[in-house]
Amino acid sequence: MPVNYATPAPSDLLPVSGVQLGVAEAGIRKANRRDLTVIELDEDSRVAGVFTQNRFCAAPVQVCRANLATGHVRALVINTGVANAGTGAQGLADARTTCEAVARQLEIAPGQVLPFSTGVILEPLPVDRLVAGLPAAVANLRRDGWFDAAHAIMTTDTVAKACSRTVAIGGRPVTVTGISKGAGMIKPNMATMLGFVATDAALDQSLLEQLVREAADVSFNSITVDGDTSTNDSFVLIATGRAENPEIVDPASPDYAALREAVIDVAVRLAQAIVRDGEGATKFMTIAVEGGRDREECRKVGYAIGQSPLVKTAFFASDPNLGRILAAIGYAGIGDLDVDGIRVWLGSAAEEVLVAERGGRAASYREEAGARVMKEAEITVRVDLGRGPANATVWACDFSYDYVKINADYRS
Amino acid sequence: MPVNYATPAPSDLLPVSGVQLGVAEAGIRKANRRDLTVIELDEDSRVAGVFTQNRFCAAPVQVCRANLATGHVRALVINTGVANAGTGAQGLADARTTCEAVARQLEIAPGQVLPFSTGVILEPLPVDRLVAGLPAAVANLRRDGWFDAAHAIMTTDTVAKACSRTVAIGGRPVTVTGISKGAGMIKPNMATMLGFVATDAALDQSLLEQLVREAADVSFNSITVDGDTSTNDSFVLIATGRAENPEIVDPASPDYAALREAVIDVAVRLAQAIVRDGEGATKFMTIAVEGGRDREECRKVGYAIGQSPLVKTAFFASDPNLGRILAAIGYAGIGDLDVDGIRVWLGSAAEEVLVAERGGRAASYREEAGARVMKEAEITVRVDLGRGPANATVWACDFSYDYVKINADYRS
Repeated sequence: MPVNYATPAPSDLLPVSGVQLGVAEAGIRKANRRDLTVIELDEDSRVAGVFTQNRFCAAPVQVCRANLATGHVRALVINTGVANAGTGAQGLADARTTCEAVARQLEIAPGQVLPFSTGVILEPLPVDRLVAGLPAAVANLRRDGWFDAAHAIMTTDTVAKACSRTVAIGGRPVTVTGISKGAGMIKPNMATMLGFVATDAALDQSLLEQLVREAADVSFNSITVDGDTSTNDSFVLIATGRAENPEIVDPASPDYAALREAVIDVAVRLAQAIVRDGEGATKFMTIAVEGGRDREECRKVGYAIGQSPLVKTAFFASDPNLGRILAAIGYAGIGDLDVDGIRVWLGSAAEEVLVAERGGRAASYREEAGARVMKEAEITVRVDLGRGPANATVWACDFSYDYVKINADYRS
Repeated sequence: MPVNYATPAPSDLLPVSGVQLGVAEAGIRKANRRDLTVIELDEDSRVAGVFTQNRFCAAPVQVCRANLATGHVRALVINTGVANAGTGAQGLADARTTCEAVARQLEIAPGQVLPFSTGVILEPLPVDRLVAGLPAAVANLRRDGWFDAAHAIMTTDTVAKACSRTVAIGGRPVTVTGISKGAGMIKPNMATMLGFVATDAALDQSLLEQLVREAADVSFNSITVDGDTSTNDSFVLIATGRAENPEIVDPASPDYAALREAVIDVAVRLAQAIVRDGEGATKFMTIAVEGGRDREECRKVGYAIGQSPLVKTAFFASDPNLGRILAAIGYAGIGDLDVDGIRVWLGSAAEEVLVAERGGRAASYREEAGARVMKEAEITVRVDLGRGPANATVWACDFSYDYVKINADYRS
């Protein structure tokens, strides 16, 4: 059960003019489940993406990078079941075969297709079954296909993740809709497992590329479930231009600011949804680190706390075992950190409790107050490093029996 | 239950001339358990230590560093139950009070005492109970006290860790005996939770300091249970000189080589014992990384594999989910890693199976062979990075339901 998250109703997911989505059952790994998605984009759509920094990056990620650099993207194709990662030369050939098959169906060029895969690593992609499933997915293409697509890209996810926003830009209503998937092997580095956000806004290509990086940085690149960076992380932002707003070209314009806010809001919600549905999660932790010299050291501290198995099991137990938080801050890798200047709070929606200061437990701290906060499902750990103006937020979940169960059982 | 490890019999632990150990029940945190140990060293003993790099290092670690730098160490005092970490100025005062009380009992100076604490972080040390327990520990001092001391320093350990070796140096028999503790919050950085090794060899102080760092590097600094670097890690090497061998002063001498081999052997066994008794461990993993440009990048890869919750849960399930190993290698942080040059083997005592090469699954690999190896309790993951002459080995354990249970319950 995800922590305070439910998939929106189909009617809450707003179509984006210029985008159609279709799904099918291709039997990639298991029968009788939708495991193939095609997203078709109108001509003149602009696309930008960020991808995993894992050196074992999947074959489709390599093809995406190449096609984004040279092609004018018209379609995305996504399969679950098999990640097509750690598959060598055959994997690359399979990803290219996939693009060629989509291109034939849609009468576009293979270089205009971005392929995405998610699932088991090191297994060959059953590309024949994928190709055989494409006609059904293409026949299924429709503007209100977001809800079905959000379901068809799931693997160990227990709920589909999707989000829509509208915003007025240059006097025109603009829509931003996105979907994402992922529950384990989640510590994205430059992107996440799979995230797709589309808007009908008209936006300059270089601004689109700036926005996809900015949005990834504060959303998918700020979450962790288990600290494992996937081989397939991809986050793609699409702007179709069909809203017919005057094209946004100035990064200092109010129009860009409004669109940026809406895109980041959707990306953050989708990223948080992954953590809320993290494998075995029972708690949603917001780790807000402030007072750092730079953003990078704040992120180090946030991730040290959010990835510590000892912190995560203490949260699972609702145990205010604060020493584990301090230990994680201490080993986060800030060589000249003065622990006497640090303050730490535990917070819920109802209260915030100062737990540590001056290198030790706060004099005002009472165990009952800490225990009260820890009983909640949504908990904020706020850390003031007391050495500068920078801050960063990381979202994480706890570590439960079910995490072990899910990952000891998966694949078998 | 530890993986293939049992505490040696008391008679297998050889006394070290010049070292006496005594234990007592001080009621630091719980009643009716031995939780206080005193180790007394004869005059002229030499001592060197390495300590945690955690910035929230415990008060006793700070006092140890200061006293090692200035004092001529004659005694060590170790309590369990409370770590005296994250305790601010009061913690430092409590550690100094402990040294003063030991010094009074043994008629030495407070600066000649090294204090060590292990247990819950952020709780004040009940120094009055500790001091009250000292006379009983001092009255208990004896040369064959190693077995009892190994038990008295345990916290979540299920077995006591101890090891003895003899080696001939300059025609004289020399003894090396050590004890260690630790089962969780284990990813030592320069040292481990607690490890104490003593020898009666006569050894130059600068060589002793070199040896403690060398031994820590390939033993306690090469293990991980959960990736959490403790606030209290300490590894101390003592040389009493009572074996009356000609003092070893030449690092190129056969005598130094022989002693070095014996000390490292004891340190490695003690470090491995911590992993074998890792919280909830059912498997012991040796991760041998070779073909790296330097030792540091080999260690990065070893730790990425040994700390990945996904790899660890797959080992718990005896599932040869090799993609998770490749993913961990890929995110280990080697920016220019060419995955096509990597080879990976899974091995047991009986066989070694090539599982991956050229960026994908090895053509010769059969799932049955991988499954056969994974059923064993002792498994080696060998990785050839194919880019240089360096190597490093990391030892780790799996991640089980019991890890979560132990850490969700601990403290409560």
